[in-house]
Amino acid sequence: MKIENLNDLFLHTLQDIYYAENHIVKALPKMVKGADSAQLSKAFEGHLEETKEQIKRLDQVFKLLEQKPKASKCPAIDGILKEADELMSEIKDADTRDAAMIAAAQAVEHYEITRYGTLVSWANLLGMPEAAKILGVTLKEEFGADTKLTKIAESRLNKEAAE
Amino acid sequence: MKIENLNDLFLHTLQDIYYAENHIVKALPKMVKGADSAQLSKAFEGHLEETKEQIKRLDQVFKLLEQKPKASKCPAIDGILKEADELMSEIKDADTRDAAMIAAAQAVEHYEITRYGTLVSWANLLGMPEAAKILGVTLKEEFGADTKLTKIAESRLNKEAAE
Repeated sequence: MKIENLNDLFLHTLQDIYYAENHIVKALPKMVKGADSAQLSKAFEGHLEETKEQIKRLDQVFKLLEQKPKASKCPAIDGILKEADELMSEIKDADTRDAAMIAAAQAVEHYEITRYGTLVSWANLLGMPEAAKILGVTLKEEFGADTKLTKIAESRLNKEAAE
Repeated sequence: MKIENLNDLFLHTLQDIYYAENHIVKALPKMVKGADSAQLSKAFEGHLEETKEQIKRLDQVFKLLEQKPKASKCPAIDGILKEADELMSEIKDADTRDAAMIAAAQAVEHYEITRYGTLVSWANLLGMPEAAKILGVTLKEEFGADTKLTKIAESRLNKEAAE
């Protein structure tokens, strides 16, 4: 698509995060299975359910724009997920692999935080308070998921990997 | 390299961010030139100088580990920078392009925030307070750079793109 103004850029970025979320949904079950810690596995499982809801919210925003949901290839999330997948296959030690998986998941969260933060800001500028509100709910969830992972890492897991 | 424990993972992640920083240093001059707003161009220029110092700090951490500085290919930053570059070339409208460049730069910042956050946490766990301190200085700078970009976006630029 040709990007001529902020409306176009907003739609393009929506398609970018739509691609990202749909790839995250495919990547998470492997992380649920791959995590050694039951606490971490449960956190990934919870985030999988959250992500499915986040995709539904994106569908709502596409609807508000009177556009069909569409994914636009996002090399950034491809890169982040590729790195995560490589580390998961390479690392044999369970505690170290869990530490790597937390770091990878936090990279994913931060990518989503930056994209949703931008989208909320643009939605407000473009006079779309309803879209800003919907996207803001997801932004808050992504911050929550990141904080949860930090707590898991600091409470137990990384300490075991350092031993 | 084979990752067998958290020490190995720390070194691997250090090499990952070393690759990222060295690619960011190469990408920033194009962004300095490409920004239409003088304020944004100046912000990118400031961050270019900051990034050069951040690379020197990574050199110091490699030295603490008695390792030669080495870059490990990081598909995540490749993806983020590729996306930024594509948008910069595609968008003709100056205000919209500036808005896209801010969003891209914030994606870069968030990638760095997550990586440095992880490295500081691991350095502490591994009993390397000096490394944690050095990496913490950069982490603080990355937060600062992200906040600065948000302020530029909210103060003027995006409003012009929305008009």
